[in-house]
Amino acid sequence: METNFSNLRHSTAHLLAAAVLRLYPEAKLTIGPAIDNGFYYDIEFPTPITDSDLPAIEKMMQKTLDAWDSFTSREVSEEEARKIYQNNPYKLELIDEIVKKGEKITLFKAGMFEDLCRGGHVDNPAKEIEAFKLLSIAGAYWRGDEKNKMLTRIYGTSFPTQQELDLYVQQLEEAKKRDHRRLGQELDLFTFSELVGKGLPLFTPKGTMLRELLNDFSQRLRIKRGYQKVWVPHITKKELYETSGHWTKFGNELFLVTSQETDDKMVMKPMNCPHHQQIYASKQRSYRDLPIKYLETTTIYRDEKAGELMGLSRVRSVTQDDSHAFCTPEQIHEIYQSLIEITKEFYEALDMNFRARLSFRDPQSPEKYLGEDGLWNNAQEIILNIAKENNLDYYVAEGEAAFYGPKIDFMVSDALGREWQLATPQLDFVQPKRFGLTYIDSQGIAQTPVMIHFALMGSIERFLSVYIEHTAGKFPLWLAPVQVQIIPVSEKFTEYAKRVVEALQMAGLRVEVDFSNNTLGAKIREATLQKVPFMCIIGGQEEEKSKDGKLMVSVRARDGKDLGMVTISEFINQIQNDIETKH
Amino acid sequence: METNFSNLRHSTAHLLAAAVLRLYPEAKLTIGPAIDNGFYYDIEFPTPITDSDLPAIEKMMQKTLDAWDSFTSREVSEEEARKIYQNNPYKLELIDEIVKKGEKITLFKAGMFEDLCRGGHVDNPAKEIEAFKLLSIAGAYWRGDEKNKMLTRIYGTSFPTQQELDLYVQQLEEAKKRDHRRLGQELDLFTFSELVGKGLPLFTPKGTMLRELLNDFSQRLRIKRGYQKVWVPHITKKELYETSGHWTKFGNELFLVTSQETDDKMVMKPMNCPHHQQIYASKQRSYRDLPIKYLETTTIYRDEKAGELMGLSRVRSVTQDDSHAFCTPEQIHEIYQSLIEITKEFYEALDMNFRARLSFRDPQSPEKYLGEDGLWNNAQEIILNIAKENNLDYYVAEGEAAFYGPKIDFMVSDALGREWQLATPQLDFVQPKRFGLTYIDSQGIAQTPVMIHFALMGSIERFLSVYIEHTAGKFPLWLAPVQVQIIPVSEKFTEYAKRVVEALQMAGLRVEVDFSNNTLGAKIREATLQKVPFMCIIGGQEEEKSKDGKLMVSVRARDGKDLGMVTISEFINQIQNDIETKH
Repeated sequence: METNFSNLRHSTAHLLAAAVLRLYPEAKLTIGPAIDNGFYYDIEFPTPITDSDLPAIEKMMQKTLDAWDSFTSREVSEEEARKIYQNNPYKLELIDEIVKKGEKITLFKAGMFEDLCRGGHVDNPAKEIEAFKLLSIAGAYWRGDEKNKMLTRIYGTSFPTQQELDLYVQQLEEAKKRDHRRLGQELDLFTFSELVGKGLPLFTPKGTMLRELLNDFSQRLRIKRGYQKVWVPHITKKELYETSGHWTKFGNELFLVTSQETDDKMVMKPMNCPHHQQIYASKQRSYRDLPIKYLETTTIYRDEKAGELMGLSRVRSVTQDDSHAFCTPEQIHEIYQSLIEITKEFYEALDMNFRARLSFRDPQSPEKYLGEDGLWNNAQEIILNIAKENNLDYYVAEGEAAFYGPKIDFMVSDALGREWQLATPQLDFVQPKRFGLTYIDSQGIAQTPVMIHFALMGSIERFLSVYIEHTAGKFPLWLAPVQVQIIPVSEKFTEYAKRVVEALQMAGLRVEVDFSNNTLGAKIREATLQKVPFMCIIGGQEEEKSKDGKLMVSVRARDGKDLGMVTISEFINQIQNDIETKH
Repeated sequence: METNFSNLRHSTAHLLAAAVLRLYPEAKLTIGPAIDNGFYYDIEFPTPITDSDLPAIEKMMQKTLDAWDSFTSREVSEEEARKIYQNNPYKLELIDEIVKKGEKITLFKAGMFEDLCRGGHVDNPAKEIEAFKLLSIAGAYWRGDEKNKMLTRIYGTSFPTQQELDLYVQQLEEAKKRDHRRLGQELDLFTFSELVGKGLPLFTPKGTMLRELLNDFSQRLRIKRGYQKVWVPHITKKELYETSGHWTKFGNELFLVTSQETDDKMVMKPMNCPHHQQIYASKQRSYRDLPIKYLETTTIYRDEKAGELMGLSRVRSVTQDDSHAFCTPEQIHEIYQSLIEITKEFYEALDMNFRARLSFRDPQSPEKYLGEDGLWNNAQEIILNIAKENNLDYYVAEGEAAFYGPKIDFMVSDALGREWQLATPQLDFVQPKRFGLTYIDSQGIAQTPVMIHFALMGSIERFLSVYIEHTAGKFPLWLAPVQVQIIPVSEKFTEYAKRVVEALQMAGLRVEVDFSNNTLGAKIREATLQKVPFMCIIGGQEEEKSKDGKLMVSVRARDGKDLGMVTISEFINQIQNDIETKH
């Protein structure tokens, strides 16, 4: 039988809560959901606990577990529930909400421990909870709202076997070493400023180089296929999103913009599709003009809860390498086909695998989506067929569609085996209709075009968070912000070093030179820490052999390999091909 | 004696007002200032007037003028002023303000006409007002505020001689033909959308191509000189501008951003310098690292009054090709020198002349500026010396400095002889201090770096408004969004046309093809209207001669010149050099 990880981990969260109450009877429980790869429980402790308290809690969990041979549930009245949790304001707030929604109040019990809960557990915890671990402690505002009290969040995980747990913990250790927030600072890629604000990264020259190289690659793949760049402003009247339908769905996630000079009700754009449709709408279009394909890398803004912001993974200014194709129904296939080719080319070049999640609507909740049944069924069929024809490694996920249409989410795996939703071609039959877009068909009749949304990296910031960890900061040569570090062994070789720099820059290479007073060893160590692909060391030997205008350098790779003494042009020839083929 | 144009035009505005009152005794006068190249008077008419009423008003002005041999003034009490203007709420509002500021209330009279006025007239209007003309009528909200009543604005101008007036009127006619708003639509460069909002242009593929080519050129000139691209978000905490000093100065011109999830008080960035300083501040800097030069083309936001928005000239989302250099005092000279070279190279390539306005502070109002006297004097001296050394055509303008330092404003002339303030290297001794920026000098002591702001085009939108009118949309080949229009004379040549397109695209040219059913004449007319530099016409003759894999085309330039039948590769060779040398 396949493990239901969510049930396993949610059950382990109950176990954690039980153990905490045995050790800290004054603690107040709040919520304890299963999450990707584990679970957490947010708890108000009478006095703060630290990581060093976790082993004792784990021990108590183990001890408690023995008696947990089942979960039983009972339904209670609002009154009863309020009585049980009279000393826990958090649970009382949850009860308020359950009552407001008209849902039943249920309690789940295992051993001596009972908790307010919607259910979703393993049948026999004592048997099935086999391998768990508490991982870390973090502060978390109640409900993620910084106006609320700060609680203690205990993270943990649970696996069906010890082997799986060990593997996961090992992966976590590796991930910690590769944490993009740490590498971002060590490699000087981006920074945050208190004055600018949370979740608003600023990119230094090296990080910007990385962004630009990736974005150029991403855009070139589409420009080659007829996509044309456009440009739109970042603020806009609220009405645009009322027309598109976004306002009803996401109105409260938008940054509101107030004009002090006019009465305009404005917002920061949370997506680009409505704007691109306004460009489409600026002229009468004919079937001869289609497909029309707009491309723009531009920033959107999401008013995330402060507590949810993290490094580049979750930011408030999100740059998308976005595009929108407008086409006839007959052209959907050809456009989807080319987007799949683009995705393959991009992620293969970056040494990342992917599988395709076909994100369809939830057939149980059609009210969550805009547009007619016929359109949805038709669109989902097209997507399914394309996935089959291309032999994609795919699976269907109902309920994951956008509100305006189904999509393919390319789930990309990184070096740690983690999976991320990045590229997403989305079919949209709804918005073009709402905006009244048309083209004149060959019979002279006005028709509504289909729109295909596509971002290849998705959010550049989030993509970078994944990619920095995927590579551990050892970027391939074509992407490395600094490709070659020039290391003169002493001040005597300053002039020579400058000539080497010039020769390499003439060949289009990105070069830095270490003119500090540090020792050769320290300079090599620094370049290695900076993960610069190649070092060119320059000293007496190199200068001596550099007759007849030929500059000699001793080359060392970042993995420590000594590539020997060569002429500058030999070195350039060696690496030029790697750059061109993106290695 | 040199003409004081402001006095001449302001006096003519009085004359206009006098004539209007004689013709429309019920009209209510408001304000009538001199402006660049003319004057206007905002008037509330009992019933609307039109352009066709202007000749009669002009005639009355001429008739009135005879008796105007002087301006005399008198000071009146608040009470008296209120009595005089008891039926004019606009003048009463102006009186309120004069009183509030504690200024004197003065009236100026010529002939029988007296007006509330601060002064600034010619001595003898009858003699000195020699050549005037009323130009147009527009609606204008009282005080530019759309909540106020809409008034009628009459624009006019006045010159010392008829000859000068005729020349100016002729220039205006030419400008009307070149109006970038009209050309922007005809050439499909940009568009506006009611749903997006006023003053927020959206750029179509062709307009975006133009933006990008110009921006690439602008940035490359700096990248060659060691500037490095960075990236910053467009929203930020208000505190950043409180620290920089912008908030006190421009606080009410900013768009305010409200987070619905957090308490953050945020704004849309109105400039980029504070952000770039945060990147500088993210690391300890040494004198060895300087100069550090950041480059970023990014959009800022200005909450302009709706009534002041116009085409691309005055927009609410303003893209700057910005850069900031941080340096030691000794490096100012070298950096300024290179910025002057960059400016020369850029504007010469675009066939535009410039002179340099040295914008210094107003010695009468030192309180308007931040920073010590010594710093200001020193900075202004450096700028003056650099202007002299480079033999710039310069003049000093006191009172035109930024609040944080003096600057050079390059005043660029367009084909119509109009002058625009575009590139502006600004010296800044103030902000780096306010942000606590430092570098460690060779003695190990922390010093404050100097910052040099520089945007080459200034605002790309505004630059485009000037440049489109400068070229009348006939962009040089290297900048033309479409460089070659392929014109097959009939459907029979579709396949041949596609081969020509492919060959030209392989050579990196931007090509469009006209597959419509129009006649050859209509296709040529359309390409000419679109101001495409070259047309390649393809018909029976061309196909016939195209043996041995050589494709023949008949080339026609946009000025109508027939360049004859040539092979594709001959054509490419002919134009490639023009593109490379930016002709």
